[in-house]
Amino acid sequence: MSILFENVTAVTMDPAQPVLKDAFVAVEGTQIASVGTERPAGEFERTIDCTGKVMMPGFVNCHTHVPMALMRGYGGGCDLHTWLNDYIFPVEAKLDDWCVAAGAELGLAEMIASGTTCIADMYMNTEIIAQAALKAGISADLACGAVYFGDPADFSPETCNDCENHIRLFENWHGAGDGQILVDASIHAEYTSCPPAWEWVAGFAQKHGLRMHVHVSETLSEHEKCIDKYGTTPAQILDKYGVWQNGGIAAHCVYLSGGDAELFAKRGVTAVHNPVSNLKLRSGVAPLFFLRDCGMSVALGTDGVASNNSHDMFEEMKTAALVQNYSFGEDHSQLSAADILAMATVNGAKALGRDTGVIAAGKTADLILVDFTAPNLFPCHDIMENLVYSANGSNVCMNMARGKIIYEDGEFLTLDLDRIRAEVTGYALPHIFGGK
Amino acid sequence: MSILFENVTAVTMDPAQPVLKDAFVAVEGTQIASVGTERPAGEFERTIDCTGKVMMPGFVNCHTHVPMALMRGYGGGCDLHTWLNDYIFPVEAKLDDWCVAAGAELGLAEMIASGTTCIADMYMNTEIIAQAALKAGISADLACGAVYFGDPADFSPETCNDCENHIRLFENWHGAGDGQILVDASIHAEYTSCPPAWEWVAGFAQKHGLRMHVHVSETLSEHEKCIDKYGTTPAQILDKYGVWQNGGIAAHCVYLSGGDAELFAKRGVTAVHNPVSNLKLRSGVAPLFFLRDCGMSVALGTDGVASNNSHDMFEEMKTAALVQNYSFGEDHSQLSAADILAMATVNGAKALGRDTGVIAAGKTADLILVDFTAPNLFPCHDIMENLVYSANGSNVCMNMARGKIIYEDGEFLTLDLDRIRAEVTGYALPHIFGGK
Repeated sequence: MSILFENVTAVTMDPAQPVLKDAFVAVEGTQIASVGTERPAGEFERTIDCTGKVMMPGFVNCHTHVPMALMRGYGGGCDLHTWLNDYIFPVEAKLDDWCVAAGAELGLAEMIASGTTCIADMYMNTEIIAQAALKAGISADLACGAVYFGDPADFSPETCNDCENHIRLFENWHGAGDGQILVDASIHAEYTSCPPAWEWVAGFAQKHGLRMHVHVSETLSEHEKCIDKYGTTPAQILDKYGVWQNGGIAAHCVYLSGGDAELFAKRGVTAVHNPVSNLKLRSGVAPLFFLRDCGMSVALGTDGVASNNSHDMFEEMKTAALVQNYSFGEDHSQLSAADILAMATVNGAKALGRDTGVIAAGKTADLILVDFTAPNLFPCHDIMENLVYSANGSNVCMNMARGKIIYEDGEFLTLDLDRIRAEVTGYALPHIFGGK
Repeated sequence: MSILFENVTAVTMDPAQPVLKDAFVAVEGTQIASVGTERPAGEFERTIDCTGKVMMPGFVNCHTHVPMALMRGYGGGCDLHTWLNDYIFPVEAKLDDWCVAAGAELGLAEMIASGTTCIADMYMNTEIIAQAALKAGISADLACGAVYFGDPADFSPETCNDCENHIRLFENWHGAGDGQILVDASIHAEYTSCPPAWEWVAGFAQKHGLRMHVHVSETLSEHEKCIDKYGTTPAQILDKYGVWQNGGIAAHCVYLSGGDAELFAKRGVTAVHNPVSNLKLRSGVAPLFFLRDCGMSVALGTDGVASNNSHDMFEEMKTAALVQNYSFGEDHSQLSAADILAMATVNGAKALGRDTGVIAAGKTADLILVDFTAPNLFPCHDIMENLVYSANGSNVCMNMARGKIIYEDGEFLTLDLDRIRAEVTGYALPHIFGGK
């Protein structure tokens, strides 16, 4: 389909022209065909007047567990390890494919309505999530997060479920939908697995050219226990087994050492900052100025909504900006609104090796429109300031992913929200919570 | 008008029954007539089915500068004192009644759409704000924030504009709209005035039985300079001049000493926490556990949107919860979702001496409905957890203030948003920013 957006005001994330005014953006198929102040030649199947709206690249939510939408806020008030062991793991043990399908579609609906067009997700029953993302229309890097609690001496790829999951996910889904779905190799975390598992996953990634997705140094306790056990940090012990050879994303990075951050910079690993979840679970605040000074790129994620409890990337941007500048801003230049927007878009796209997160000709057409006539976005003295500090997800009035409009004026065009609600209420919640 | 809400699920803030299910709430005139699980007898002019929605008391936003909606995000990136002196004061010097009217209506529209039913505002051209609040329909405590930069020896109530403003505001507006508008006595801050002004305002408050509204110890610099100048803190030097005799609200309280907080507890002064503004201006984080341990009540405010940049009390609640529990939670019990909701509703109502903030028979009918079928609020494992951590202002689908529905399903019933936008764009912005 060909669509022409006219009267466009846009934040592009393109250094050549960061802000567009009175512009035209043309989309052909899945790509942005042209961006400029002259009306492009040719016929378009649809023309969209963007007066009163602001266009920006769709959000890249770089660390999610999308089916956890089912557990929104469950176990609120605990620290990470209590919350995981006493609330989340027991519920997750009951999940089946139907629950994951319902939870994934629900989480994707929330993300789409608030402007996300690309995610990096780590969860179980991953093929089901791939089906949901393919249907929903957004791009997804999917990872099955290898876990191995057995005796390392007994580890065998033939009997480890998550090795089989890696193989099946890769064979069935890597590159599906013309690259809409990509598969990342993944270790859940240092503390939930062991060296033979790391070695296998690292080898799998190298064999197939896959990026890596791992939880790293989210809590001080996890970081210190790893040092006690292995004599070095999670980032560095995993590196000894070749885990970071193809780069990828390290979620959280709250307690990275300078050596860790420099290693990650060298390996092309992006830190994914999840400020709301890290505050809610009282894990800490990742030191973004420090990570940046060590050469790392930083992207943004919501984590699962069970510990957030929202998939709204506008809220994540504002929290990141407020907390970082307050906690660490004194001796540094501030993180500007443009820095924060980059974390939520183009930095995430680069981390995943995807040609999106920027409004420029040739890029994937992942675009959102934000209603700047809403009373919370008017007047506008600075577009980026309004996007970071004033907007919320409900101000999104259109979501185009891979050239297709998947949400417009409150309507979902690829997902059936009533059916999703019915499946969550009728099946998933009773199945995992018992009658709720 | 009489309205019956049926199939009500509600968070009431009434300790006798904190959560209602399958209930009826009847409103007669400006009051809640009954709350219960039996349908009340009698005829109602309108019946509203609340299935899928959650009712809660409207928010009490206890520290605002509502016309600053005109300056949304203006001067973003600065600390408080640079922002005030280089950006805000020069613009404020150009404000006239027409600008203040347009800005006040715009700010009130944003507040109403996101669920606020009562405010405590401090600003100039205060009678214009009173007109706007009366028309908009929400309750407002209004204060004109006395400022006096002259030589204290020259101070005279006859020649001090803000003394005249106090008198005129009180005589024309205190109790207007059957108590909808109340007037607070007010000193802008210790550092923007002097002892003779404090003495006059304190005397005025005592003569007329008015509460006080003052910015107190917002920044460390302000707090320490006061100690250098007067040998004691802002809270205590103002007390020497009788400022707190009738209680009231102290905005910010980031750097109160234990002695300050105990004094405030004794005087019935409530601390108004403004976490977003305090973080954005890098002022600090008010120590709520400490204030509470000293016996103080804490309410919540957004401050002006110039330093926020939003009037959304849902966002303010979430930021308060995340930052407080992370910063100070380790050695304390956590602030629960119920504690946070109380700060945003009933604690503010008590601070202003208003019989609202609670859903119970006999209280003022300040009620909002939140759409819990929205994808960001579904499923719901705990209503309070969803309200504090998942909801945003755009989830509000009805706002009833003083028994009158003033906003419903995106429509403003007392304000004309198109006209407000036209006045902001056509007059106020060019007038104060010169051609913008």
